[in-house]
Parts: sequence; structure tokens; C-alpha cells
Amino acid sequence: MSESVRAFERGLRVIRSFTAEAPEQTLAEVARATELNRATARRFLMTLEELGYVRRVGDRFALSPRVLDLGYAYVSSFGVPQLALPYLETLSERVSEASSVGVLDDTEVVYVARVPAKRVMTVSIGLGTRFPAYRTSLGRALLAALPDAEATAIFARSDRRDPTPRTVDDPDELRTRLSEVRERGYALVDQELEIGVRSIAAPLRDATGRTVAAVNVSTHVNRTGKQELQQRFVPALLRAAADIEHALANRPN
Amino acid sequence: MSESVRAFERGLRVIRSFTAEAPEQTLAEVARATELNRATARRFLMTLEELGYVRRVGDRFALSPRVLDLGYAYVSSFGVPQLALPYLETLSERVSEASSVGVLDDTEVVYVARVPAKRVMTVSIGLGTRFPAYRTSLGRALLAALPDAEATAIFARSDRRDPTPRTVDDPDELRTRLSEVRERGYALVDQELEIGVRSIAAPLRDATGRTVAAVNVSTHVNRTGKQELQQRFVPALLRAAADIEHALANRPN
Repeated sequence: MSESVRAFERGLRVIRSFTAEAPEQTLAEVARATELNRATARRFLMTLEELGYVRRVGDRFALSPRVLDLGYAYVSSFGVPQLALPYLETLSERVSEASSVGVLDDTEVVYVARVPAKRVMTVSIGLGTRFPAYRTSLGRALLAALPDAEATAIFARSDRRDPTPRTVDDPDELRTRLSEVRERGYALVDQELEIGVRSIAAPLRDATGRTVAAVNVSTHVNRTGKQELQQRFVPALLRAAADIEHALANRPN
Repeated sequence: MSESVRAFERGLRVIRSFTAEAPEQTLAEVARATELNRATARRFLMTLEELGYVRRVGDRFALSPRVLDLGYAYVSSFGVPQLALPYLETLSERVSEASSVGVLDDTEVVYVARVPAKRVMTVSIGLGTRFPAYRTSLGRALLAALPDAEATAIFARSDRRDPTPRTVDDPDELRTRLSEVRERGYALVDQELEIGVRSIAAPLRDATGRTVAAVNVSTHVNRTGKQELQQRFVPALLRAAADIEHALANRPN
């Protein structure tokens, strides 16, 4: 690894050492979390402070909102999240549940847009949240767009800890599910991520037919039966997906 | 500037060169946008690709969703956005308008949480959006928490291009407005950011009394008269602010 690659990787590691559990850290804490020695950790904290990405709070350090600019660069350059948002709003309104757009990043699905349900206190999933793709509806819709061999390889290197009793745990079973997704045009995942949570997702294709993202709606088994999910939610989902694809195909550029 | 600082700054500059207008760039385009020579730009693109932050699309480069992790580090370590979200939902529901939480970053206010209005097709403002603080309600609520001298200094170095006929353009006038904010407990900004847009904002203080963010509701002059804004929206806003402050004071950590 070249010197500049290493420097860059370390700087990013320092940014990512700040979490909900460690929002403000001393130099010693950053050094421990990043596995850098104190001198190096200090140098990177100074760099980040100089560039406006880190601020001091007494003898501690915290991230500054400038860090958001980096995530914003992704969201605005990808474009799909902003374009999809009004359609997610309509979808969430129709089914009174949260809806999201996600993309595949290696073995995981990452949420890039989300509209919460009308009801207060729903499951709190934010932008940037990640889950193993193979056990979520967004992930299944995305994996179904890949050749089986590739999807199976992703499954093989996925984080498969903490399955529910319903989680797919075999590549053959996954292949069967993915072929169902291709046939039906949507994925339905029933409590494979978490007991109680059911979700449906449809792929989003650009004008060339390439799947670039997926859109989903999730609900709780106590709120929505499987029949209602299929008879009322699926058409609303597919309508939203078609609207977003239409907008994608017609965007300028 | 040390070598590692420079390396880090350049890497971040490459990330930020990807925008809504330039979502996919060739090496030459990245070099031009970042003012780096081609060899250096190439080295940083390779680094970013190696670390999973950039992906290739034919002979072009694009950001990968891993970049979102960086913004996510800020949102989750700051904590206020996630904590505020359910209260923003209630607030938006009550007034049928979008509500947001913002923080001050030098001269600008940055949106760190947002709940859209129920109505489809509202003004599309995403997380990470920035506006000059002095001409927005969020910014005024935040500037009012600072000593006048500091607020005036921020005003002096703010981007003051493209004012509307109503935008404050004088430090004395700003000071008067800020003292009104302190007296009333909220800021009302009437078409100073954009003609047609009115918004109100209240500060969010942590348990120590320090203002850490602000919460706002914005509306359009055609939808909401000034009287309704003050009689119906302001109490809803202040209620949301009090609820968020209560949650802030009682969070574990």
C-alpha cells in the first residue's frame, strides 16, 4: 500500500471511529478504536480538525457536520434517492408504512432513501444503514438481477450470524427464492431479517434495463397479514417502482 | 501542510468532485474538477477504488455507497437527528409541512434530519443541504445563541449573493432580529431565503443549556398566512422543541 493510500485509509478510519456509542472521544480513545499509535492518531485528528471535519469539545474530539458533505456527494451524484423521494412519499402514504430505496454494496444492502411511516415510533432505520442482502427484500430484489453464480458467491461470503428460524441458510434455497423474484417481479421476505418484520421489494431499472437500486415497504406481522401484503401492498409497490423507473428514464443527462 | 494532511485533503477533494451534475467522471474530468494533475488524480481514484469508495463504470468512475458510511458516522455520533426524528414526524403531521433539524457549520446551516410534508412534491431539500445561516430561520435560531459579536462576524463572512428584496443586509438589522429571537424563543424568517418561503425555527438545548441544533417548519406564503403561522404553527414547533430537549436531557450516555 502506498504512503498516500495508507494516509487516506487512516484518516477515514478515524472518521469512522466516531459512533453512537462513542460520539466524543479523547485522543487515547481514538488511538484505541483505530489501532493507531497516539502520535499517528493525533496527527490525523489535527488534519481532520484543520480541514473542518473534526471539532474539539474540551479535551475531546467530535465529528463536525462537514462530514455530511461526503455522504451528500454520494446521494446527489447517484441521483436516484432524490428522484425517488416523492414516489416513496406517495407509497408510504398509501400503505401507512415506511418505504425505502436501497443499493447493493458487496454483500450488503445500504439504505439510500427512506420515508418513515405516518405513525410515530416505527423501527428507526436511517440512511446508510446496512443489512446482509440475502435476508432482506431489498437485497433479494437486487441479487435476483445478478447471475445465480454471482448471487451464490455473495451469499457464501455474507455475514450469516444470528439467523431467525426462517432465514434462508442454503444456496439452493436462495436460488429458488431468487428465481421466484424474477418470475413475480418482486421479493417477499417473511421474518428472515427479524421475527415480526415482513417486507416486499421491487427492482429499479434504468433506461438500459440495468438494475440500479430497489424499492421496498416493510411492515409488522401484527399490523399486516400476508394476504393484505400481497393484495394491497404489492400493487402499490409495483406502481411506485414503475413511476420511479419512468422518472429515471426521463431524467435529463 | 504535512504530506499526510495533503494526501487526505486531496482524497476528500476527489470524493467531493462527484456531484449531481457530474455523477460519473473520466480520469481527465476528475483531474480538471479537483485541479490535480492526471497522475495524482489517478493515484487517488485507485486508492478510493481499493478502499471501496469509488467504483468503475466502463471508462468512468462513480462513488460507491460506502461513501454514505462517512456521513452516517456523523449522523449517528451526533445522535440528535435520530433522537429528533419521531418528534419531527409528529410536528410535520400536525402542520402538514416539512420539518427539519439543522446545525451551524461556520457561516452555514446544515440540515441533519428532515421529515417531508405529507403532500407530494414539496421543495426537495436533502440531508446535508446548506444555506447561509443568517437568512434562514434555523440559522437565526442558532446565531441567536451566540454573543452578538460572534454572530456579526459570521454575517460578515457569509455568502451574501442573490438576496431577495427582504433579505437582511445590515449587521445592525441582524442584531435586532437576533434579539427578537431571544425574546420570543423562536425565529420567523419571511422570504429572506427565497420569495414565497416562510419558516419558523426554535433552538434545541442540551441538558447543560448549550444550543446544539435547531428545529424548523417551513411553508409557502400561498399555503399559510402569517397569522396562521404564528397562531397554529409556532405552538406546534415549540412543543416539538420542548419534547426533543426533554429526550436529549434524558438520553442514556
